[in-house]
Amino acid sequence: MTDQAGQARRYTAQQLEEFIARAFVAVGMDEGDAGTIAALMADADLNGSDGHGIFRLAPYIRRIREGGLNLKPNIHIARERLGMALVDGDNAQGHLVMSFCAQTAIEKAKVTGVAWVGTHHSNHAGPANLYAKMPLAHDMIGLYVAVGNANHLPPWGGTDMLLSTNPIAAAIPTDEEPAVVLDMATTVAAYGKVKTAAQRGEEMPEGWMIDRQGKPLTDPERAGEGFLLPIGGPKGSGLSLIFGLLAGTLNGAAFGEDVVDFNADYKTVTNTGQFIVAVDVAAFIDVGTFKKNVDAIVRRIKASPTLPGFDEVLLPGEQSRRKRADYTANGIPVHQGLYDSLEELAAEIGIEMLAYS
Amino acid sequence: MTDQAGQARRYTAQQLEEFIARAFVAVGMDEGDAGTIAALMADADLNGSDGHGIFRLAPYIRRIREGGLNLKPNIHIARERLGMALVDGDNAQGHLVMSFCAQTAIEKAKVTGVAWVGTHHSNHAGPANLYAKMPLAHDMIGLYVAVGNANHLPPWGGTDMLLSTNPIAAAIPTDEEPAVVLDMATTVAAYGKVKTAAQRGEEMPEGWMIDRQGKPLTDPERAGEGFLLPIGGPKGSGLSLIFGLLAGTLNGAAFGEDVVDFNADYKTVTNTGQFIVAVDVAAFIDVGTFKKNVDAIVRRIKASPTLPGFDEVLLPGEQSRRKRADYTANGIPVHQGLYDSLEELAAEIGIEMLAYS
Repeated sequence: MTDQAGQARRYTAQQLEEFIARAFVAVGMDEGDAGTIAALMADADLNGSDGHGIFRLAPYIRRIREGGLNLKPNIHIARERLGMALVDGDNAQGHLVMSFCAQTAIEKAKVTGVAWVGTHHSNHAGPANLYAKMPLAHDMIGLYVAVGNANHLPPWGGTDMLLSTNPIAAAIPTDEEPAVVLDMATTVAAYGKVKTAAQRGEEMPEGWMIDRQGKPLTDPERAGEGFLLPIGGPKGSGLSLIFGLLAGTLNGAAFGEDVVDFNADYKTVTNTGQFIVAVDVAAFIDVGTFKKNVDAIVRRIKASPTLPGFDEVLLPGEQSRRKRADYTANGIPVHQGLYDSLEELAAEIGIEMLAYS
Repeated sequence: MTDQAGQARRYTAQQLEEFIARAFVAVGMDEGDAGTIAALMADADLNGSDGHGIFRLAPYIRRIREGGLNLKPNIHIARERLGMALVDGDNAQGHLVMSFCAQTAIEKAKVTGVAWVGTHHSNHAGPANLYAKMPLAHDMIGLYVAVGNANHLPPWGGTDMLLSTNPIAAAIPTDEEPAVVLDMATTVAAYGKVKTAAQRGEEMPEGWMIDRQGKPLTDPERAGEGFLLPIGGPKGSGLSLIFGLLAGTLNGAAFGEDVVDFNADYKTVTNTGQFIVAVDVAAFIDVGTFKKNVDAIVRRIKASPTLPGFDEVLLPGEQSRRKRADYTANGIPVHQGLYDSLEELAAEIGIEMLAYS
């Protein structure tokens, strides 16, 4: 089935998950690990994080085939105090490392109230919100920050690409309202959006990128000639720097010049850094009171009249939830360019392709 | 002495500090507390945080005289676990509450590696960087977030002013280079900058504020008719919301509709919320290695060629350090509007005015 524009097939999350797991197993990953990663990647697609789900499968597989990823990792705590841990990801797929870190942070926060767990020798882990949301089930707040896996912007005013989109995600538990889930790059657009625009043959709006002369760049095929723009100019640039120092340098992970462009180099260990913070709400305030108070704020915000040009006020995470509802009912769209690349991948590694849809 | 434009007298930090302390003592504050606050306020001025230093003295004093602040507070830990504390500020001046919180966070982080200390019943505490910098002397990273003391923007797309500039500050220790110190509102401009523009009779650039029709607003005298713009549109709005939930709601402090506009109401308890996180670098990595690595990143960034229109690449905190050097050598500028308001204040509470400079 193709969508209204005739450009995308649609699949269930389970279909994508099974295909993804097949692919990882075919290149030598344990079934358990493959299943964990596939479930998180399909969940990313279901949430509308379309630059971070099955879209990334081919490059992930390529990294494995070129020897850039450790398929038999020993993910372990390298340093530890009561309220923190530094996890050595042993060059495993980031989804595995961050799942371990989230669990570690949750267990520690049950005791200390707040726990911070960082990584080194991790890898790309998909969308930030996946991990920020993990503490929610424990009535905890989750925060997650990562060093992006390729530098796409210079420090504000410069031209040497030393910074990445270094995203932050935060997830706040609620009572009856859906959780508040922010997931944002420190740039106006995440680079995944540039890549999906290129794959779909779409033009980028002005404001996403500039060229080396500081002029707007709107052709995603020319993305390599320019820079992403940080939000708020020096502010977003400053946030990217601070997040990079916290998620990278503090953990002994790559940041700045050391960042390996995972879109260009599939062999070198990326030494990716991330961190997650779990905040146990019960340490601060009665959990029921907190959730009801967040609900009240969410409802008050939704009740705000709108500015000219807006139909409604959207909370962080709301668009993603709507996509999830749509994709759950109607399937996750897989555009032609992505479909072709998956077909090529399936042939290459000898696995059954997604059913023709 | 007036400056080149003939519009500002200049004073030493010590002169400002003594004047500020005199003012607080004159309205009934203990000398010790007055000295603590005065030192932090003068330090803010010396750093160029001109919307957060002596500029705030008259409204602070007015709040005290109208009974809105507790001069004999019992600032204490209300809830505590190993890695966190919730501090009841007992409606004290925010500088006192946050100094207490920073110390608490530092002591806890020595044990747990990371510690998070939040406040309720605090008050405005001046610029965020003051507190984020406190852990630096202990080779710790400091992070600070506050709920702003007046709502100046709606959630993205709305018109009900439910959000504030909710700032974040981060301070990262270095070896030979100056510390990296980010201090930013989640809006393009902090409201203090609007107020100083108004006091100086200056126009605001487009992009700081919009009116209720969504059109640019550049006259700071009309600020009450419009909204501050968040950085990156929905992203800055989302950050402001998350920071408000973390610094306000989680702590049982005001956020959203509950926020008391401290520029309009000098009597009602503000129940201001803030939090500070201290991260002990030694828990993650050898301190010397970390500092040298941050130095290297700072130097690499400074060495970047510049975009057309830029003379150099500035690190977060660099402009502030230059102002500090200038103001230390030449005095802190006090513009005529501010001077007049201080003269009026001095007469009102019967203290000696700043020397005529």
